[in-house]
Amino acid sequence: MDLGDLAKSIRPLDAEAQAKARARQDNLTKPRGSLGRLEDLSVQLAGIYRTASPKIKKKVIFTMAGDHGICAEGVSAYPSEVTAQMVLNFSKGGAAINVLGRHVGAEVITVDMGVASDLAWPTSVVSCKVRKGTRNMAKGPAMTPVETLDAVLKGAEIAQGAIARKADLIGIGDMGIGNTTAATALTAVFTRKPVAELTGRGTGLDDAGLQNKIRIIEEVIRLHRPNPAKPLDVLQRVGGLEIAGMAGVILGAASKGVPVVLDGFIASSSALIAAGLAPESKSYMIASHRSVERGHQAILEHLGLEPILDLRMRLGEGTGAALSMSIIEASCKLLSEMATFDGAGVSKKLDGE
Amino acid sequence: MDLGDLAKSIRPLDAEAQAKARARQDNLTKPRGSLGRLEDLSVQLAGIYRTASPKIKKKVIFTMAGDHGICAEGVSAYPSEVTAQMVLNFSKGGAAINVLGRHVGAEVITVDMGVASDLAWPTSVVSCKVRKGTRNMAKGPAMTPVETLDAVLKGAEIAQGAIARKADLIGIGDMGIGNTTAATALTAVFTRKPVAELTGRGTGLDDAGLQNKIRIIEEVIRLHRPNPAKPLDVLQRVGGLEIAGMAGVILGAASKGVPVVLDGFIASSSALIAAGLAPESKSYMIASHRSVERGHQAILEHLGLEPILDLRMRLGEGTGAALSMSIIEASCKLLSEMATFDGAGVSKKLDGE
Repeated sequence: MDLGDLAKSIRPLDAEAQAKARARQDNLTKPRGSLGRLEDLSVQLAGIYRTASPKIKKKVIFTMAGDHGICAEGVSAYPSEVTAQMVLNFSKGGAAINVLGRHVGAEVITVDMGVASDLAWPTSVVSCKVRKGTRNMAKGPAMTPVETLDAVLKGAEIAQGAIARKADLIGIGDMGIGNTTAATALTAVFTRKPVAELTGRGTGLDDAGLQNKIRIIEEVIRLHRPNPAKPLDVLQRVGGLEIAGMAGVILGAASKGVPVVLDGFIASSSALIAAGLAPESKSYMIASHRSVERGHQAILEHLGLEPILDLRMRLGEGTGAALSMSIIEASCKLLSEMATFDGAGVSKKLDGE
Repeated sequence: MDLGDLAKSIRPLDAEAQAKARARQDNLTKPRGSLGRLEDLSVQLAGIYRTASPKIKKKVIFTMAGDHGICAEGVSAYPSEVTAQMVLNFSKGGAAINVLGRHVGAEVITVDMGVASDLAWPTSVVSCKVRKGTRNMAKGPAMTPVETLDAVLKGAEIAQGAIARKADLIGIGDMGIGNTTAATALTAVFTRKPVAELTGRGTGLDDAGLQNKIRIIEEVIRLHRPNPAKPLDVLQRVGGLEIAGMAGVILGAASKGVPVVLDGFIASSSALIAAGLAPESKSYMIASHRSVERGHQAILEHLGLEPILDLRMRLGEGTGAALSMSIIEASCKLLSEMATFDGAGVSKKLDGE
């Protein structure tokens, strides 16, 4: 697979299907516009699926895991071993994403993009391991160019594989102790906002920990001076393996005409990379929720995305993506299953609109 | 049924079950608090159901319909006949609430509290008709005291009937052309905010229609001078039959230890009445979403409720309630199905919290 070809293969949405979907929305038995965001979502999906009556049949969530060398600088409240422990927890069905995947009827696929562990995973875990965690980006680039490209293409491949097995709605979420540090660095590079404004407490840093994290991220950016016009180079220097993998999933899904539901801060940081590599991929993105992590709002604004949910969540794993899938599906069903004014014999507005 | 006895039978939530649920949340495999609002919801439900592992088994949504004499003053963009036409649409499964009820697995029960029509409904429509629409409240009280009490008690009865048939999560929504006018009057009385700040466009008034609606509501309040310390009297003067019925559902459900999911502006205006009659009923309320209708936010603040969703919806029918039920259920499942740190062998936070 060639990354340039992949990016070029992403088509603009089908404007005709969108216009038809909007016209149908306006003739359903409800005041025009009264379903708010649900109407807009259904029209976006009509454009992505290239049909005025979109239907979602198979939902898949990729929970992509990787470790971060930057943890050596004390940027997380949890030890790195938790990444591998949580991968095992995912494989046993005991994590939040497993509960929510079952609840909304989505298959959850755990992907090892770069966990720093020699553990033999159960067969349910997909191995796309590029290396055992990134290098410490406070000392040098997190990944080599080859590793970076490898991770992105592996992400694209698993997305296309799932679509070949009939997946038509794909969610992405993360697991990686230390990854809010990488995501914050990426956000600072692409949005050009001050690190101190973007940095959050991750899994639960105290005030001193937060100040240390800000200082480390500022130093990382001073060291690398990443150029946002070169997304792969930014990713290589201050990104992460699971972030690279998620960027690949976005490109792979969009190239096959399938929407991607972004979880929270980390998944959205991968969307910065995907949008940098292929601006058209933005049309295929759906922001599931607004995370408590401060940098997330900056990404959403930068990409022009409006989150569906705002529930003060900050867990990752794909949990926000899973919850929002129920609402995304609902928007499709409303468009295709509701009666029209004429069909139901319901009077229209008095001004005849 | 006696209304005073009903109100008195509502118990405070079970603080012990809530404390146990909170303790379990803090030991699940996730950073403490990272599920945000979902954690709080699960603790509220633990207190309502009086168990630290709440489970939801049967969801019912009452879509309660009534007509409004105030429509004679030109306060709505749609003709009154639409109320009856939509009741038929509900009975045929073609309305938004039917689609969403099917999607989340909730039974939708359409209730005629006071539709101004002689149509013979299909058997699926529950008749609790008190009279054919309210009187024009610009000329006198919307209902008599006897009609008002009758509507409230009928609502309480259908809620208790559903609970006897194992319903354990009840949603309330409305259908009634003209009912944002009644809801706005109620909101102005209880929140003591200016009518102009609370009045919205309902199903889609233009600017002139909005100004007329504001003027009419101000006149109605000047005419009746309703006293918020007497909730039934307020309801009788400026309320509606479906609003009275929904207030009854809240009291009936709370009296049996079942939570009530409020839809948008109209359902929440009935919550003002329920809270006035039985302040403890507030603990059993869950606000599903924030409506576009301006008055809704004022009610939510007055009752101290935080909506789950904010999707720019303004349809009513119980559509917001239905969508939020999926998230309410998810909060219970997370609490009872997730693994604990000890159980899953996952390391805790470095500071040992």
